[in-house]
Amino acid sequence: MFFCASFATGARPINRLAFFPLAVYEWGVMNKLIPIFLAAACAISVQAKIVTQTIEYKQGDTTLEGYLAYDDALSGKRPGVLVIHQWLGLTDYEQNRAVMLASLGYVAFCADIYGQGVRPKNTAEAGVEATKYKSNRALLRLRVNAGLDVLKKNERVDTRRVAAIGYCFGGTTVLELARSGAALNGVVSFHGGLDSPTPADGKNIKGKVLVCHGADDPFEKPEDLAAFEKELRDANVDWRLIKYGGAVHSFTQPMAGSDNSKGAAYNERADQRSWQDMKNFFAEIFQ
Amino acid sequence: MFFCASFATGARPINRLAFFPLAVYEWGVMNKLIPIFLAAACAISVQAKIVTQTIEYKQGDTTLEGYLAYDDALSGKRPGVLVIHQWLGLTDYEQNRAVMLASLGYVAFCADIYGQGVRPKNTAEAGVEATKYKSNRALLRLRVNAGLDVLKKNERVDTRRVAAIGYCFGGTTVLELARSGAALNGVVSFHGGLDSPTPADGKNIKGKVLVCHGADDPFEKPEDLAAFEKELRDANVDWRLIKYGGAVHSFTQPMAGSDNSKGAAYNERADQRSWQDMKNFFAEIFQ
Repeated sequence: MFFCASFATGARPINRLAFFPLAVYEWGVMNKLIPIFLAAACAISVQAKIVTQTIEYKQGDTTLEGYLAYDDALSGKRPGVLVIHQWLGLTDYEQNRAVMLASLGYVAFCADIYGQGVRPKNTAEAGVEATKYKSNRALLRLRVNAGLDVLKKNERVDTRRVAAIGYCFGGTTVLELARSGAALNGVVSFHGGLDSPTPADGKNIKGKVLVCHGADDPFEKPEDLAAFEKELRDANVDWRLIKYGGAVHSFTQPMAGSDNSKGAAYNERADQRSWQDMKNFFAEIFQ
Repeated sequence: MFFCASFATGARPINRLAFFPLAVYEWGVMNKLIPIFLAAACAISVQAKIVTQTIEYKQGDTTLEGYLAYDDALSGKRPGVLVIHQWLGLTDYEQNRAVMLASLGYVAFCADIYGQGVRPKNTAEAGVEATKYKSNRALLRLRVNAGLDVLKKNERVDTRRVAAIGYCFGGTTVLELARSGAALNGVVSFHGGLDSPTPADGKNIKGKVLVCHGADDPFEKPEDLAAFEKELRDANVDWRLIKYGGAVHSFTQPMAGSDNSKGAAYNERADQRSWQDMKNFFAEIFQ
């Protein structure tokens, strides 16, 4: 399935070069040159053309179905970003994030941890699926590494510059990916569970770690945070953790509603800030 | 005392408009237009001209001596940033930060909390001075608000867009400034003490709060951090706190050396990241 995001997702075309930062007071001088400037701008500006594709792949005997997004107007290799879904499995939500990443110039691939067609319809089903993997970290590592392999094999990806991001369950998963020793420049967890049954595996982490955390997230206890920090400190990992005041679990997810008292709710402010923080992190690790 | 930073501080001139983002493959098209582009660029590009000035002012009967920095090549009003010194008092360190802020387009004013000529020569003297104000928060509030008044009265400052930043003792001070009810868009604490003898004063905080904190800072106990978060949470303040892994106290200050075991040391990585985080924060609060 290929389609152009400018039709299918409503993403607006991107002019890569903003060529006319003209102050009003310069108008008198500049207006004579505009035809020439316009010609030049047209010659070198490029519009984004976001292409997306469903990709079937395997881990062992299990068929998985992921989702790729990239900007076809760009040429050459570029950094790759693996995206890991929350406990409801791979949904439009992660696909939209992949398109957003593609618009930033990355090749983004949403991995499928659960398996083709396994898409929980409610939180009860989601809990069952997520628990399968949270209680079997070895399997979780196999599944997420299978997704990473797909991303790295993409011809557009510069395999020296690869990161992974994840939401909730996916945050836990990208940390587990790092703990598996995967060759990554960095991982970003958005409101992910931070616990590890094998904290000594922190020593396997090769890239940098950014944790975006809701300061009022009731699912992460102070002792969980302290244990996580200890794991990374003991392993001498390059990490940072951002606490967003007023944010609970799922703060990047509009479908979580707006009632903080439920423990999970969307928070537009924290969503925008954490996305910006991720962009800064990428700018640093993909230098 | 007026002087130009391009001579006196080594700050490099800034070209505000990067006018030639030309890819090599466009060179054949573009080279014929260069004379015209150059003429246009010269017409509208501006070089920064950082001006600094020592300013005497009063709080009660006490004479204070602050330090102003701004870009004289800019016209019109712009955001103002108050800078509060660490426990050694107002030094070259804060003055350099003011110049860096001026280079970003802000009017920066380093307040003097201790008083004209009161510049501790060592940590023992610094401890005595800092304790005077940490144990007398009412006086600390008067002193820092006096500095804020100087900044706000500067003709170049847009008084609707004002923030304060501080280092160590200065981090504590800008939080105290916010707790005093000062009209600010935001405050940034770099490795500042977070404790408050009057946490109920959190309700007076009008702006946003960013705390840049060394994750291994031995001077802030987990209970101090928890109390601070509770203060802001209870007061419904818009806040965020960033923990930089591997950083101890004084992580932005090269004069702190590089030995983490002393509890205070420079950390270039955390210094650069926190400065970037501050810039993002300003971009948000000065919209």
